[in-house]
Amino acid sequence: MSEAKTVTAALVIIGNEILSGRTQDVNLAYIAGALGEIGVRLMEVRVVPDVENEIVDAVNTLRAKYDYLFTTGGIGPTHDDITAECVAKAFGLPLIQHPEARRRLVERYEQTGMELNEARLRMANTPEGAELIDNPISTAPGFKIENVYVMAGVPMIAQAMIDGVKQTLAGGDPVHSRTLVCSIGEGNMAEGLGKIQDSYPVIDIGSYPYYRRGKYGTSIVLRHTDEALLESASEEVAALMRSFGDEPRDEI
Amino acid sequence: MSEAKTVTAALVIIGNEILSGRTQDVNLAYIAGALGEIGVRLMEVRVVPDVENEIVDAVNTLRAKYDYLFTTGGIGPTHDDITAECVAKAFGLPLIQHPEARRRLVERYEQTGMELNEARLRMANTPEGAELIDNPISTAPGFKIENVYVMAGVPMIAQAMIDGVKQTLAGGDPVHSRTLVCSIGEGNMAEGLGKIQDSYPVIDIGSYPYYRRGKYGTSIVLRHTDEALLESASEEVAALMRSFGDEPRDEI
Repeated sequence: MSEAKTVTAALVIIGNEILSGRTQDVNLAYIAGALGEIGVRLMEVRVVPDVENEIVDAVNTLRAKYDYLFTTGGIGPTHDDITAECVAKAFGLPLIQHPEARRRLVERYEQTGMELNEARLRMANTPEGAELIDNPISTAPGFKIENVYVMAGVPMIAQAMIDGVKQTLAGGDPVHSRTLVCSIGEGNMAEGLGKIQDSYPVIDIGSYPYYRRGKYGTSIVLRHTDEALLESASEEVAALMRSFGDEPRDEI
Repeated sequence: MSEAKTVTAALVIIGNEILSGRTQDVNLAYIAGALGEIGVRLMEVRVVPDVENEIVDAVNTLRAKYDYLFTTGGIGPTHDDITAECVAKAFGLPLIQHPEARRRLVERYEQTGMELNEARLRMANTPEGAELIDNPISTAPGFKIENVYVMAGVPMIAQAMIDGVKQTLAGGDPVHSRTLVCSIGEGNMAEGLGKIQDSYPVIDIGSYPYYRRGKYGTSIVLRHTDEALLESASEEVAALMRSFGDEPRDEI
């Protein structure tokens, strides 16, 4: 078995609208998928309100614990957008108006004829020394400071930002996965599956019951960087399913 | 202004399938909404992997910090279902087979003719002294120990569990909300909105830009327990929108 290089990340989702249930977050799943493609494993997510000390604490705890930290939300022009200030405070850095961010905003607002007022200029604020993250949708950039990547909350913009950023990250070995679906209750397979997990302790084996259109069953998902090892474990799971008289499928 | 009683909660979402991006969580928004109805405010959410020390740490941190802690996920019959053990460890309590939980499982599996094996009996395990949370969908219960409520991850079951549990919680004053939608860019309103927030510091005023079917604009959401105060602040937001020549609407 090859020695796998694991690169880890966390995500802080900032915003009262997620915590109130008003807005369904969709950034977590997208960012997790984008990171997975380059071998970065999302290990922890926190959703915090638009409250300074909560944001500062989450940023400082998670940037120390993982290789990368991403944040979404709170970088717009209004009073409840406080992420840039909070990240500056977390790093003990002054908050400055980033010259290139300002230049981009000036250019955009000249083109559109909208007013570039004080509130909108707040979107050029970053901690001193930050690099910009491009926003191909609506110009106002995110930023990177050390291992922390500050992105927008609006899904279309968050997705464009992570798609741009992921090219620049030092990823690990990509994690591959195999999914085997059957019509057997997970309780029937649990003992056999536990034994397979014991034989392959490094493989992440997940068991997920489903119930759709009157049919129930179980999806088994195996994840690891080593494809040969994954293939071997998947064959044991397939054999377990066959021992219950079912033929594994790729999807529900 | 009346003195508001604030009751707080946190949620721990347990499961590698959420962190890998394979599964889109929908429990957060549902639980947040259910708690909001009874005046309990969801203040923080953590998504953690199926790893013992991560679950134990999250449970112990958040049960001390908030009035209630809810968890979803990890209470099925397979090797990756470790929530009951972790919660017992977090409380320093022995993990026992709960007699009533066992009785319910025996009854169900007798009715369905399926095998109640050792793996399925794990679903009767709780920390000593726990009370059961009913599962009207598939029998295997959740449980409550002190201020921690352990629920299933499957959305249909998680929703049934929180719907049952919420009747039993000591809620706070219910939080009311007003939403005002307009076609004005949030950057235009930001200064005026900031002044309204300064006049009503206790009201949670959120500003959310939208872009749908080629039309953009801003939704302003005001939240507080005091309806009269909320009405007064909402009128100021409506006047701000009118000062830009737009008439506020209820929805996008």
